[in-house]
Amino acid sequence: MTPVLYELRGRDDRLRFSPFCWRARLALAHKGIEAELVPMLFTDKSPIDFCDSTTVPVLKDDFGVSMDSYDIFQHLDEHYPDAGHGPLIGDALARARLNFVKVYAEQVMAVGFFRLVALDLVQAIHPDDREYFQSAREARFGMSFEEFHDVEIARGILDSAFKPLRGLLGNQPFMDGESPAAADYLIFGFFIWAHIVSDTSPFGETEDPADPLVQWRERMMDLHDGMARKSPRASEIPQ
Amino acid sequence: MTPVLYELRGRDDRLRFSPFCWRARLALAHKGIEAELVPMLFTDKSPIDFCDSTTVPVLKDDFGVSMDSYDIFQHLDEHYPDAGHGPLIGDALARARLNFVKVYAEQVMAVGFFRLVALDLVQAIHPDDREYFQSAREARFGMSFEEFHDVEIARGILDSAFKPLRGLLGNQPFMDGESPAAADYLIFGFFIWAHIVSDTSPFGETEDPADPLVQWRERMMDLHDGMARKSPRASEIPQ
Repeated sequence: MTPVLYELRGRDDRLRFSPFCWRARLALAHKGIEAELVPMLFTDKSPIDFCDSTTVPVLKDDFGVSMDSYDIFQHLDEHYPDAGHGPLIGDALARARLNFVKVYAEQVMAVGFFRLVALDLVQAIHPDDREYFQSAREARFGMSFEEFHDVEIARGILDSAFKPLRGLLGNQPFMDGESPAAADYLIFGFFIWAHIVSDTSPFGETEDPADPLVQWRERMMDLHDGMARKSPRASEIPQ
Repeated sequence: MTPVLYELRGRDDRLRFSPFCWRARLALAHKGIEAELVPMLFTDKSPIDFCDSTTVPVLKDDFGVSMDSYDIFQHLDEHYPDAGHGPLIGDALARARLNFVKVYAEQVMAVGFFRLVALDLVQAIHPDDREYFQSAREARFGMSFEEFHDVEIARGILDSAFKPLRGLLGNQPFMDGESPAAADYLIFGFFIWAHIVSDTSPFGETEDPADPLVQWRERMMDLHDGMARKSPRASEIPQ
């Protein structure tokens, strides 16, 4: 069978912005695997009724069903070890250190992106999903989206979170060395998420083309035949 | 020849606190290599006149001379690949991710430790070295040690820097997975440095024994026959 990736869609079917689905998409491209992309809504999860997950991404292929972007990385490394550009996660030592990158991305950096684009995100989501999404997230944040969305606070969080990324990427072209792998996709998922739903730059009013992190983002946008760069942005699709 | 590790000594020859020398020491122990430890002062670098370095650690063994703690890791992996507890750095993917841990330790976390113990550090240093050390560092910081030493600011920096370490170490016993390797030694160098020169805890007035980072530090203190725990602290040695 052709592998199938179930992912979140937005108000327009061309809007696919979930950071976790992007990790899975990029991981498939890394392995040179073409998958059928099947959209799902928060309020209609019937496409993934066949499995235990209530979230996407979900990958289904000849080897079984894999849920959660990190499990998809593992699944791909296990069943397609040398395909395309090689391992995503690597051996035990590489995996242990990838776990640090993952925690850093999700527990330190992600909230900065969320606060940068929260209100844009609501507008990019499918109308049927908005009430569910907004009330669930507001309960988690303990504040309204109007308060949570704060570009100045967001850029403060991001500028601090970007510091070690800049330090690293001043010395090597990708998080994972000479070429990208799982660490790059883990981090970049949040960049492409924000890029698709919002025109607000995470870097400030102007971007410095000499910034190693800006340069890395551009390299990531170009990867795998420019799949991230070609993905339509919310601002390009009329409401 | 018996490998020789050149390292910094303090006001008493038993006081060996340099975070970078500790990385090298722990890496040697990891490989099961017994080295002769030769002390050096900032103001008398004659012991390392034989090489190009002006800083310690320096390792000299049958395979040559290796300077800088990271180069020592590489040297040990190259010449003693399977000795003791195995690779320190690992393959290309593991190395790329280790570089992130290194940048994080040095560019985000270290300054917190330094601000926590700056004045204690001056007292632990050899009297001949104090003026040199203090004036060189004050020029770098742009403030006096009296201003720089600020436990409250330090704990704020550390609490923030510790967040992803706690997130990771809640899921795995060591930075490098089931057992320690280079990432643990890179980070722990700063913990043992502060521990030796000062009685001020990086965790606050009281330490929570349920904190995964406190638990990791204790495991690191016990490693390799408790070498870190056995190392004398400045407060145990009269001025």
